[in-house]
Amino acid sequence: MIKKILIANRGEIAVRIIRACRDLGIEAVSVYSEADKEALHVQMADEAYCIGPKASKDSYLNFTNIISIAKLTGCDAIHPGYGFLAENADFAELCRACNIIFIGPSPEAISKMGTKDVARETMKAAGVPIVPGSQGIIESIEEAIELANKIEYPVIIKATAGGGGKGIRVARTEEDLIKGINITQQEAATAFGNPGVYIEKYIEDFRHVEIQIMADQHGNVIHLGERDCSIQRRLQKLLEETPSPALTSEIREKMGEAAVKAAKAVDYSGAGTVEFIYDYNHQKFYFMEMNTRIQVEHPVTELVTGVDLIKEMIFVASGKPLSLKQEDVTFNGWAIECRINAENPEKNFMPSAGKINMYLPPGGLGIRVDSAAYPGYTIPPYYDSMIAKVISYGATREEAIARMKRALSEFAVEGVHTTIPFHLKLLENEVFVSGDFNTKFLEKYDVMK
Amino acid sequence: MIKKILIANRGEIAVRIIRACRDLGIEAVSVYSEADKEALHVQMADEAYCIGPKASKDSYLNFTNIISIAKLTGCDAIHPGYGFLAENADFAELCRACNIIFIGPSPEAISKMGTKDVARETMKAAGVPIVPGSQGIIESIEEAIELANKIEYPVIIKATAGGGGKGIRVARTEEDLIKGINITQQEAATAFGNPGVYIEKYIEDFRHVEIQIMADQHGNVIHLGERDCSIQRRLQKLLEETPSPALTSEIREKMGEAAVKAAKAVDYSGAGTVEFIYDYNHQKFYFMEMNTRIQVEHPVTELVTGVDLIKEMIFVASGKPLSLKQEDVTFNGWAIECRINAENPEKNFMPSAGKINMYLPPGGLGIRVDSAAYPGYTIPPYYDSMIAKVISYGATREEAIARMKRALSEFAVEGVHTTIPFHLKLLENEVFVSGDFNTKFLEKYDVMK
Repeated sequence: MIKKILIANRGEIAVRIIRACRDLGIEAVSVYSEADKEALHVQMADEAYCIGPKASKDSYLNFTNIISIAKLTGCDAIHPGYGFLAENADFAELCRACNIIFIGPSPEAISKMGTKDVARETMKAAGVPIVPGSQGIIESIEEAIELANKIEYPVIIKATAGGGGKGIRVARTEEDLIKGINITQQEAATAFGNPGVYIEKYIEDFRHVEIQIMADQHGNVIHLGERDCSIQRRLQKLLEETPSPALTSEIREKMGEAAVKAAKAVDYSGAGTVEFIYDYNHQKFYFMEMNTRIQVEHPVTELVTGVDLIKEMIFVASGKPLSLKQEDVTFNGWAIECRINAENPEKNFMPSAGKINMYLPPGGLGIRVDSAAYPGYTIPPYYDSMIAKVISYGATREEAIARMKRALSEFAVEGVHTTIPFHLKLLENEVFVSGDFNTKFLEKYDVMK
Repeated sequence: MIKKILIANRGEIAVRIIRACRDLGIEAVSVYSEADKEALHVQMADEAYCIGPKASKDSYLNFTNIISIAKLTGCDAIHPGYGFLAENADFAELCRACNIIFIGPSPEAISKMGTKDVARETMKAAGVPIVPGSQGIIESIEEAIELANKIEYPVIIKATAGGGGKGIRVARTEEDLIKGINITQQEAATAFGNPGVYIEKYIEDFRHVEIQIMADQHGNVIHLGERDCSIQRRLQKLLEETPSPALTSEIREKMGEAAVKAAKAVDYSGAGTVEFIYDYNHQKFYFMEMNTRIQVEHPVTELVTGVDLIKEMIFVASGKPLSLKQEDVTFNGWAIECRINAENPEKNFMPSAGKINMYLPPGGLGIRVDSAAYPGYTIPPYYDSMIAKVISYGATREEAIARMKRALSEFAVEGVHTTIPFHLKLLENEVFVSGDFNTKFLEKYDVMK
């Protein structure tokens, strides 16, 4: 069993991992940038070491310094959290070379899932549904036209080397398609040094539904149900819930099975999330991508399944078999997470760094708060703006919503703007309450009005 | 359905009730003494009114002012919380006369359970096991000697009008008994104006195990399992847990049935707790008393059953039937509550009122905090010293203990002394961890050493 873990992260996820370490009697070592001297993850750790200046590339992404601290402090494992080095195959490789357990999947699995077209082909071969489209990159305009006619418009043109919403274009007609391919190829050549593009059927209205999986090093893989993350603003998730209001139990089961297949296809181990496009109009789902790490929204899964995902990650990274089988996984109640950011929702979500003068998180029945904020804490402007995750739990969606509204209305944060007013309005929005929405929800409805 | 509730209490329980009101969309009116102007229950309520000076008798026990505020603000119900007016039959009677719903049982049920010897006789008649002893008060020393020989020494001599550990004396021999009866009668005559005493078999080593019950106004009564409150200091509970480490499922079932019988015997409605002496050496339990209100330790039951007890109290007080049947009640996992008081455990638990400069409650998976404290809050010296209840939940007792230790170790309270260091040592104590202890635990072991 792992005895001492270096946490290569900051903020609430570092605190979350420290808590799991404490619960297991494992020593926790924090690392921090010069901007994070006063951070909670530094105060809570058994040991904490500065690893560089404020810029992430010099600190939280600094391979050498992180590995050195791990070695010097006798850590036998590194937990990368999410973001930063969590999906960096080279870092996972370096850990392996240095005889340090990387708490996550193998570098090979990270690589395969991290490369868009490889992931797509791997999934296709494994029998996981993928969006209909071209096999590999488009060789000629004629090929593209023929394929588009076959899969039907609209289609989406994607640069192989693109990502994060860049190098993507929707075509609704043949004219769009010809023009789109040319422009995207040119842009991709310039931006990514690789002009390759492929096309896929464009699913107009879909929900973002993802499956949490957990795998050990002995070939066992289970899934822990879905999370619906359709409430997004510019591809950033703002509210997640489980179960999804849109899934039938049949689709849920099929999606879970597909996610397990996806994980097995890359010899996965650890916690992972298989994201799907759920085309609810046709009750079909397609592989979107796999995140080879713990996700921000993992707590909703923990509340309905009772499984401590971070603990389980540590167990399986230690070489233990999964602590439960698929048939032992049960789902009770409903959980919702709101990501509270230091942003001003009245001013287009402008980041609002600064000092939190007053801070009192909500509490009571059915409320969990994961945060690294405290009274007097100054939010550094260099990293992400999330200050707390509020997670509510109830027997029904209605109860979970009511408790969330109550929790947010009593959450006291003074000194910085927060997205609490946005979330409160969202929770009162009739369409949100109905459960009948898709990823375009926040484009269609200005909940702040 | 009740629409507006006056909360005739303060501190964490007032906050707890406000939260339930919010969850149900019910308006919450707080009342407060002059010492509580800055209290959280005042800040959180929809409306708040001062009802008198700092002394409880002039404010939180002031019938007239409380009823007047309820009437003036259009409240249709009053929730008394625990302590203060919660078990005052006269107050419940006055509410009834004023056409205000008292969220609790009838004045008749409160009365019957509030009078020791009446409760004992009622339970005996209902077939609930009571400790063997005299029927009513002792008429002569000869009768007492005969009875003591029959039930066997040691016996306990109790003043009928006593309570709270006063007017009680243990006799291990006939000599003790004769002397004890005389002294207790004299003391009781002086202290309570009633010299009546009765005797019971003295159970040397027992656990305090209580059953949560819930009853509607239609004759339905269910129980929600037990709580073990054997960790006490001078009859004050400091840590409670469910399930009890000492109960077999057979005893659990029988105890639950007995509690339901007890409630039915007094036409009970609302939330109540039947406390038992559990003589684990003989696997026998005896009725101790019934608390006709919500208890401080109710959250542990909520966490393992998923039932929101305050909501349920409001439902049944509104006349609704119980929202679940006995067969719907399920028990999952283990929950522990630590009562964190503003007391110095290094100095014999001396109260430590004052200003809380820094306050950051613990969070994360498996931790619930019920509190009325906040950064900058000054604890008034006039009321009880509890500043927070930390409740941990886990799949097993081991996990619940580990999470509680973690939570308490990260709980930041500066400015006043707290019992956190005591609780941390208790949670590490081998005897506590073994689960094999009784109500004398804190007499036997000085955990602070």
